[in-house]
Amino acid sequence: MSDIERLIQLLAKLPGLGPRSARRAALYMLKRPETVLQPLARAMAEAAVAVGPCSICGNLDALDPCGICVDTGRDTSVLCVVEDVADLWALERSGSFRGRYHVLGGTLSPIDGIGPEELGIARLVARAATTGVREVILALGFTVGGQTTAHYIVERLAECAVAISGIAHGVPLGGELHYLDDATLATALAARRSLV
Amino acid sequence: MSDIERLIQLLAKLPGLGPRSARRAALYMLKRPETVLQPLARAMAEAAVAVGPCSICGNLDALDPCGICVDTGRDTSVLCVVEDVADLWALERSGSFRGRYHVLGGTLSPIDGIGPEELGIARLVARAATTGVREVILALGFTVGGQTTAHYIVERLAECAVAISGIAHGVPLGGELHYLDDATLATALAARRSLV
Repeated sequence: MSDIERLIQLLAKLPGLGPRSARRAALYMLKRPETVLQPLARAMAEAAVAVGPCSICGNLDALDPCGICVDTGRDTSVLCVVEDVADLWALERSGSFRGRYHVLGGTLSPIDGIGPEELGIARLVARAATTGVREVILALGFTVGGQTTAHYIVERLAECAVAISGIAHGVPLGGELHYLDDATLATALAARRSLV
Repeated sequence: MSDIERLIQLLAKLPGLGPRSARRAALYMLKRPETVLQPLARAMAEAAVAVGPCSICGNLDALDPCGICVDTGRDTSVLCVVEDVADLWALERSGSFRGRYHVLGGTLSPIDGIGPEELGIARLVARAATTGVREVILALGFTVGGQTTAHYIVERLAECAVAISGIAHGVPLGGELHYLDDATLATALAARRSLV
């Protein structure tokens, strides 16, 4: 296989890139060896060496413990449980959470062999039991897997003296009612709040 | 900037990847340092060193002259002119051409400062004038730029004793007439062929 074909094959494995867009990306890079191809190759090689999961929260970072876990400016009394590092990134971008995280790395799925051990739930319970932790926020997906996992975590945390909350479900910002699915509408209606 | 942020920024520059899909691709790679991130970084670093434009035809290859130009199994009497290496790749995938290529690297565009020199048209004329070249096929896009460039090349090749042809325009395979644009339909009608 030629250098170009190998590059295209590897690029095509990335999510969101098929064979067609992998060829396009490869050609774009090959035409710009100094400005795109080499800097990207270097950034990837460096990230491969430096970046790994945080042993406390599961976040990916060049530091272990990660930048969030060692940040003394953050509220250590709140733990936010997310499924994936992508969810942690989304919450960080929103700038709406200043506590710490716990990344499960997935949801419970017996059929795929993903049980509480694979998600490190014992580690979460241990963290929640530490003095100083006041609240655990479950920020899991509004999916069967996410909600099953949330219920399981609520049960496991019963032994800890912490408040447990879940993020709200309802109409998203900019959501027009007639475009929303029935389940979201039903949830939003059931979770209505008094406005006066 | 952190290793992860730099990686995402560089990925987001690739065509077809926005900030959102760049984050997704970065996370996918970071979770698979040994199987995805390092092999891809290596393939890119190697391609950056090895791959460059062929000094004869403009194709990108690890060899110079490229594998197509040195392939003795190919018909040296036919030159196929394409705009971009991506077009050469597409024709090679189709397996329908066994001659050699000439990659222009774009189309004439005075407004962008792209004239005959930038496209290496003198080099093309010199190749077409070589003994042994019998036909030049213009396989340029059916766009204003492509067709302007085709007309210009036809004029410039008038001095050479070669046949000049252009690939056919018409209804694409699987094309349903009622979905096609007016210009394609008009072209297809004007270029109708006798079937008996």
